[in-house]
Amino acid sequence: MNALVAGIEAGGTKFVCTVGTGPDDLRAVKSFPTTTPHETLGQAITFVHEQQTLAGAPVAAIGIACFGPVDLRPDSPTFGHITSTPKPSWGGTDVVGMFRDTFGVPVGFDTDVNGAALAESQWGAGVGLDPLVYVTVGTGVGGGVLVNGGLLHGLLHPEVGHVMVRRHVDDHFAGLCPYHGDCLEGLASGPAIQARWERPATDLGVDRDQAVKLESWYLAQLAASLTYLLSPERIIMGGGVLKLPGLLDAVRADTAAVINRYVDVPATSSQVDTYVVPPGLGDRAGILGGVALAQRALTQHTSAQRTSAQRSSQH
Amino acid sequence: MNALVAGIEAGGTKFVCTVGTGPDDLRAVKSFPTTTPHETLGQAITFVHEQQTLAGAPVAAIGIACFGPVDLRPDSPTFGHITSTPKPSWGGTDVVGMFRDTFGVPVGFDTDVNGAALAESQWGAGVGLDPLVYVTVGTGVGGGVLVNGGLLHGLLHPEVGHVMVRRHVDDHFAGLCPYHGDCLEGLASGPAIQARWERPATDLGVDRDQAVKLESWYLAQLAASLTYLLSPERIIMGGGVLKLPGLLDAVRADTAAVINRYVDVPATSSQVDTYVVPPGLGDRAGILGGVALAQRALTQHTSAQRTSAQRSSQH
Repeated sequence: MNALVAGIEAGGTKFVCTVGTGPDDLRAVKSFPTTTPHETLGQAITFVHEQQTLAGAPVAAIGIACFGPVDLRPDSPTFGHITSTPKPSWGGTDVVGMFRDTFGVPVGFDTDVNGAALAESQWGAGVGLDPLVYVTVGTGVGGGVLVNGGLLHGLLHPEVGHVMVRRHVDDHFAGLCPYHGDCLEGLASGPAIQARWERPATDLGVDRDQAVKLESWYLAQLAASLTYLLSPERIIMGGGVLKLPGLLDAVRADTAAVINRYVDVPATSSQVDTYVVPPGLGDRAGILGGVALAQRALTQHTSAQRTSAQRSSQH
Repeated sequence: MNALVAGIEAGGTKFVCTVGTGPDDLRAVKSFPTTTPHETLGQAITFVHEQQTLAGAPVAAIGIACFGPVDLRPDSPTFGHITSTPKPSWGGTDVVGMFRDTFGVPVGFDTDVNGAALAESQWGAGVGLDPLVYVTVGTGVGGGVLVNGGLLHGLLHPEVGHVMVRRHVDDHFAGLCPYHGDCLEGLASGPAIQARWERPATDLGVDRDQAVKLESWYLAQLAASLTYLLSPERIIMGGGVLKLPGLLDAVRADTAAVINRYVDVPATSSQVDTYVVPPGLGDRAGILGGVALAQRALTQHTSAQRTSAQRSSQH
């Protein structure tokens, strides 16, 4: 029986909050738009308070799967802060501190996509798989990575979306990334599709086949690069753009074609359908990322306490 | 005081063997060409026997940093084997088994590049850094990765060299990768340079500046993709091709230009000289990889024995 925890998917557009013990026991889910840190974090805190009252018990931990960039270095003075975001008033916000000070329980914190990767590895399409990659293609292109038992951090955290890709010969769109123009995100995000065809991805009409062809070519290059550099056991690909009919199958076929049996394992050729897959948790991967981060923070806290108790008893 | 171990750099062209306790205490180093498994592994075994006699003590472990592809899954029936190599008679060779059966000590085994990454993280240019990437550009392009405390394995193991890159507009060479034509390895390996200019990289004459320009553009794309997908704290870049005068500095400048301050950390802009660096161990990264793998295997073996002893004493 897992402890009751709070999970928060802190997105740049909206926050989604829940309280529960796992995917089959989410007591309530509430979402609200992301406005100012004061207002939005205040709403999240109020939600958790209300749910604690309803449950008649405090939450044992809180997990936050957060939009970024965020500071994930545990020894950094700004750990748990949102750093240099263009989003007005959010730069420098101490997200973790606010929840820790309010509730006095362990707070798990990571990027939204790392949270989703963790949730998929516990309950979704990547159970037991390591390395595991979770990619989302929507307003931007992002990715989370679980490897050697931990979520991938590093110099910053993976910024999957901005890899340089080889352009499709039929694609004359300049790309709209403010840093790189025609990097993957500049060519293949939802806004890129909208700008190229001057229509949203949901309304492409006769251009849909062409859109799927270009999109698939770019996302297959990402899948191949992930394969070469990270050697994941599975790549989970979700987000609004992947709802384009036929796109996921096209990405699978193009991924196999790009790799061209160089990596001689069935996952990248005849069994590519089991290698590039949709999220097992569907649209709940994000919020369940919050829940998974909370549970992990609780486990780490308990384990650290036990080690500390053992040390004391030995002296 | 570290135990005496044997380290073997098992390359496709030559084997290099040593016995020692670390980089400052290699008792002897011997190299010989890679011919048949019987002859070459036999020579390596003879070398270790001779060194044990000289030292008056057995080696405590053996580490093998091996050319590939190799099977690295501990639970696989062919763990420690070379798998599907085009190299005559080496496919299916049980490298680990031969040394374990002969010497009865723990045998560490990984790819040559993962071994080099481990050695650089212990004694070279990547001490204490995680994630850490080691890239070598020579006959091929390969990479090893240390992340979350372990070497990166996965579906297979990282095959860094074959990522698709955007071609330089001045480059009309078709590329020579048998699988992909103009992937990174097809355009930027030593043989690719030789084929493009019909001269070895050491003898480019007036074409050297142009060669550095193209090579740098391709390797910078790799460095940028590694940054986006793996977020390493440092990228170590070595191998014969990096000896081209001016190339490393050009790669640094192009890496910063490709990333274009999107990842807003000094390592990818003003301090890129500390981010893309040559091997701290120079040409000894490979053989010291063998030594590091041996020491790691010994540590793991000792730790497993201790756990097992603790369990017994509790029952």
